[in-house]
Amino acid sequence: MQQIVDFVLELDKLKAVTRKTRPLGLERLENSAEHSWQIAMMAAAMAPFAEPGLDMPRVIGMLLVHDIGEIDTGDTLVYVEDGWAERKAAERAAVQRIFGLLPEAQAAGFMALWLEFEEGATPEARYANAVDRAMPALLNLANKGQSWREHGISHARVVARLQGPIREGCPALWAYLEARLQAAQAQGLFGA
Amino acid sequence: MQQIVDFVLELDKLKAVTRKTRPLGLERLENSAEHSWQIAMMAAAMAPFAEPGLDMPRVIGMLLVHDIGEIDTGDTLVYVEDGWAERKAAERAAVQRIFGLLPEAQAAGFMALWLEFEEGATPEARYANAVDRAMPALLNLANKGQSWREHGISHARVVARLQGPIREGCPALWAYLEARLQAAQAQGLFGA
Repeated sequence: MQQIVDFVLELDKLKAVTRKTRPLGLERLENSAEHSWQIAMMAAAMAPFAEPGLDMPRVIGMLLVHDIGEIDTGDTLVYVEDGWAERKAAERAAVQRIFGLLPEAQAAGFMALWLEFEEGATPEARYANAVDRAMPALLNLANKGQSWREHGISHARVVARLQGPIREGCPALWAYLEARLQAAQAQGLFGA
Repeated sequence: MQQIVDFVLELDKLKAVTRKTRPLGLERLENSAEHSWQIAMMAAAMAPFAEPGLDMPRVIGMLLVHDIGEIDTGDTLVYVEDGWAERKAAERAAVQRIFGLLPEAQAAGFMALWLEFEEGATPEARYANAVDRAMPALLNLANKGQSWREHGISHARVVARLQGPIREGCPALWAYLEARLQAAQAQGLFGA
């Protein structure tokens, strides 16, 4: 039991990892723990638009664990393209350390979810990734483009970065988002 | 899709609902969204101590939705005993409003999880409740009794409030916690 408690208290550090978006109506930056909760809820709520037969509990498990490596590495803006491989290796070392606080069977279960998400080879991982990618865009759309404008991200860069993974993981979500992004461009909500 | 997006953006407000505990090493108060993430992870990590055959995805679903009513009502300290029934009625009205943003089938699914947690009649609900009750105590134990001291909560009140639900939902967790709380009393980590 002490191993599990140590693990859960280690997880507390994800509440201190800040992202680039701000929660609606708040001045502070969003953190990765509350983001993980929100996308788990989004995945469940959007189930009617997921591929039939998808294992939703596995999707939710992946989304709950996918950012835990940031406890050691911090969050990186999805538009930063340099050093992605090094960053992923560092995140992997981080989750090995953190899941390693647990008894072996528990550690292996979480590691399998983390790897499935990273590899993106299953419909569940692709759907989970689509939800994860779409969420900050939805917040930005509701927030007058806050993090796009703060970081000088253009409409073209958003589309280039999100289109592939979201369309692959949840085509209906991309169809919706593509139209919203186009409208946002017309309104001048992007940077650059 | 727009209904689901509206729902997910409404959930953003749970990031602004503050609790009484502080994340380890941070000055600010914890919010209910990041708390929901952490207890979902704790429930999964503690699976070896759950009743055999427990439906863990349902436990996790309950923990992800159980605090959503606080978007309208705010968080209440578990030691506040007056007005509990009124508060629960208000939370129920709140989740009916919030889940009601979704298409009917999705709303009904989340509502069923929320009600199962509140009613506490299944082993899954009792285990989920044990985890939810234990988490702030674990943070307080790691935080030198921070919220107990700030709110003048004695060892006897903590035991009276936590023993029943935690012992019922996860006996091994109570056995662990009981000993920790006793040691904390000897160290003077309680208020009053």
